[in-house]
Amino acid sequence: MNFKLTPSLLAISFSVLTLSACGSKDTVSPQSQVKPKNIIMVVADGMGPVYPSAFRYYHDNPNTPLVERTIFDKLLVGSASTYPASESGYISTSDASAAALASGVKKNNFFVTDSAASATALAAGIKTYNGAIGIDQQKKAHLTVLEWAKSIGKTTGIAVTSQIVHATPASYIAKNEKRGNYNAIADNYYDLKVDGKFKADVMLGGGTKYFIRDDRNLKDEFVAAGYQYIDQFSQLSTLDKNQPVLGLFADVALPAALDDEDKYRLKTLTQTAIKQLENDKGFFLLVEASQIDWGGHSNDIAYAMGEMDDLSATMEFLDDYVKQHPDTLVVLTADHNTGGLSIGSKNTYQWKPHFIQLLKKSPEKIASLLATNKITDQQITELLGFPITDDEVLQFNVIKLEQTLAASQQKQTPIEAEKALTKQYYKAIKNIIDLRTHSGWTTGGHTGIDVPVYAVGQGKEEFYGYQDNIEIADKLFKLMGRE
Amino acid sequence: MNFKLTPSLLAISFSVLTLSACGSKDTVSPQSQVKPKNIIMVVADGMGPVYPSAFRYYHDNPNTPLVERTIFDKLLVGSASTYPASESGYISTSDASAAALASGVKKNNFFVTDSAASATALAAGIKTYNGAIGIDQQKKAHLTVLEWAKSIGKTTGIAVTSQIVHATPASYIAKNEKRGNYNAIADNYYDLKVDGKFKADVMLGGGTKYFIRDDRNLKDEFVAAGYQYIDQFSQLSTLDKNQPVLGLFADVALPAALDDEDKYRLKTLTQTAIKQLENDKGFFLLVEASQIDWGGHSNDIAYAMGEMDDLSATMEFLDDYVKQHPDTLVVLTADHNTGGLSIGSKNTYQWKPHFIQLLKKSPEKIASLLATNKITDQQITELLGFPITDDEVLQFNVIKLEQTLAASQQKQTPIEAEKALTKQYYKAIKNIIDLRTHSGWTTGGHTGIDVPVYAVGQGKEEFYGYQDNIEIADKLFKLMGRE
Ligand SMILES: [Zn+2]
Ligand SMILES: [Zn+2]
Repeated sequence: MNFKLTPSLLAISFSVLTLSACGSKDTVSPQSQVKPKNIIMVVADGMGPVYPSAFRYYHDNPNTPLVERTIFDKLLVGSASTYPASESGYISTSDASAAALASGVKKNNFFVTDSAASATALAAGIKTYNGAIGIDQQKKAHLTVLEWAKSIGKTTGIAVTSQIVHATPASYIAKNEKRGNYNAIADNYYDLKVDGKFKADVMLGGGTKYFIRDDRNLKDEFVAAGYQYIDQFSQLSTLDKNQPVLGLFADVALPAALDDEDKYRLKTLTQTAIKQLENDKGFFLLVEASQIDWGGHSNDIAYAMGEMDDLSATMEFLDDYVKQHPDTLVVLTADHNTGGLSIGSKNTYQWKPHFIQLLKKSPEKIASLLATNKITDQQITELLGFPITDDEVLQFNVIKLEQTLAASQQKQTPIEAEKALTKQYYKAIKNIIDLRTHSGWTTGGHTGIDVPVYAVGQGKEEFYGYQDNIEIADKLFKLMGRE
Repeated sequence: MNFKLTPSLLAISFSVLTLSACGSKDTVSPQSQVKPKNIIMVVADGMGPVYPSAFRYYHDNPNTPLVERTIFDKLLVGSASTYPASESGYISTSDASAAALASGVKKNNFFVTDSAASATALAAGIKTYNGAIGIDQQKKAHLTVLEWAKSIGKTTGIAVTSQIVHATPASYIAKNEKRGNYNAIADNYYDLKVDGKFKADVMLGGGTKYFIRDDRNLKDEFVAAGYQYIDQFSQLSTLDKNQPVLGLFADVALPAALDDEDKYRLKTLTQTAIKQLENDKGFFLLVEASQIDWGGHSNDIAYAMGEMDDLSATMEFLDDYVKQHPDTLVVLTADHNTGGLSIGSKNTYQWKPHFIQLLKKSPEKIASLLATNKITDQQITELLGFPITDDEVLQFNVIKLEQTLAASQQKQTPIEAEKALTKQYYKAIKNIIDLRTHSGWTTGGHTGIDVPVYAVGQGKEEFYGYQDNIEIADKLFKLMGRE
């Protein structure tokens, strides 16, 4: 079955939509009268509970005797489970669970979620299969909290450090069978409307290549429809508050925080988005710290902590914003954990983040500089911020010789060879850092541990304690008056 | 310096004791009038946040479409950091932090706690070094919440599945420089008094060998002082409610839950302890699920889940108890995380606990049965509850041949050889289970991630959100009227 979602079909799907997200009477306190004017949902992609613990020690000021509390410590309220639907992929019956039971194969076999299924849970309050964007296992589209906010007259926006069509933001706006269909998802951003209006008034992040294509120029279409278009951070301060905005600052994703000129680029984007969105009827903003997940996938603790630092600054700003605007609610959670990170590993009862606090570039950038002969082995020490041993220098030389041999045997092009060498160096540098810091990993993928939930502002009590990720959408719907 | 703690010295230490545990005004809600009559502190040794997540899926009923919530989901209120003092071992100055700063060596180098330092934090509200029992880095003894409870007229007790002199229970009662001094710690249980009274009215767990020794028979001393002594679970129902009790049911620790006749032995001990302790002035009970940690150290997911099952039953009972006795507070937390467990590992997005749900014995027991020729390779399948492959049977045969060779070369005694073979088989069985379930590990030790905090009953609001482990003691002191 090749069921294509069209705008008209979506309208039908929405109209027959029932409240599929299950109730949570036992965990929600009687706060149903609370209606925050502004809601800011922050998703920290891949941020399982170890990342905020690690960040406390990474971020600690060594010149004070006590361990400083972080903004995460200040705002913690609970945790959330993240498992996706119990069957992976599409199913054709109308009741996934019944089908699974009937087949007799259902055992306690749990899937670990990807970002698409979990973002769809957070956005629309439904369990779906890994890869699904805004639709369920029967490919039915579901209303999201961003769409609901738009339908009740609020302004809406997204501010992310990935391409803006990546799984998390896409799940709040687009409807697609497969998260990888970036062009189709970008088309959705223009084509799918709520009551005839574009879904997002502010879109800030990366992804130029999906919006300016040979087959369609969505940038021009948005501009023709009245959007301001910018592609430089310097233009953020020049925006007209009375016009919607599309800001794409990279071909795909923004650089890692460690390599970006603005190390707090998520904070910068969030500040701008809020300034643009503020109005009498309130706003809904989705913020995503997209790249904690990528640090986790690469098993790169330095990369992940750089992203946590930007998220921390963003949350500090939002916590202040709530002080000035007490009718605002900010909720932060993760979609899943990534990497199986441990602080302390291989029987060592220490974690030493000071080895990654003086990094001048990301480990991958250092690897690439080394592979392109822009720095010497010895200069690695300067960029890492700690001395490497003679044995480690030797190791880099061995990697180079082995890769030179492989390049010749496999007839690699110079670009392929450079890429392969960067990859090997990157692996070696991460290994050096893991050994120094005592960081451990179990996977290049995701894991099934519950993720932390943070909240501040009006309605935060709703998020106390344990909840499933679909309940976060339920609660946001309720706080916006959809019962 | 060899500074020995004596009862008289302890008395002095207590009298000069100042409120060293730091305040936590920003996180504690104004509940200072609340004074629960009974306090039950439950420590789940090694239970980092992944264990309750894993248990939800392990415990799930596959015959229902939804994932059932666990008692942990119901009672979650927050989390706690667990780092020990910033210097390891004793320090001789009066100010650890000042010394560290003066030495100029303080970098962000965090230690991962052991059970002794963390239990001392939970019991006495102080940061100390790994291995310390009830004392700080200057070897000064600190008052514990159990001792305080006794001093204000409550009855007190411990119920654990380790030897009762193991680090966690010891930290509430004994004072020692080194957790491994089990005999000295057992002596403390008799010798150290609060206002002339024994510290614990009820002591249930393992550890006969530390109480009935050649050099001292503490069992006889306790009996002479009016204690009932039992060493069989069947005697639990015969106890006189009006007499204190020492119950030691194993030479060292109780068997793993998976191998015990009473798979819910912690629940059984907890029920008995409460029955014995109940009185008009209330009680303080320390319960420890001691062996989750040991499952973690062994990287044995089946062992750990068996222990979680017993803890879950214990918490269900305690939750019911609070319903009947609303003037009771139950707090559950862990001292640290163990093993760096991940559910989902090596890029696999699934976790399959059904492979450990039909186990008939613990993996170590199965290994030992195999090593002593009490079962055949093929019978492993029966005990594991799932079929093993021909390759895996072959692997067991290879292990046996290799070990036979090693035994001959190293001139091992039959007992040494059997032990070595058991160890190799145990490793192989755990590997089979990890591959089937997709469980991953990063260490045989502890890790630094924050641990979950659960609470139910009067005063539970005090434990909402993030806190450091020493604040848990602070809060309990406050709830018992010590400001
Ligand atoms: Zn990911
Ligand atoms: Zn341990």
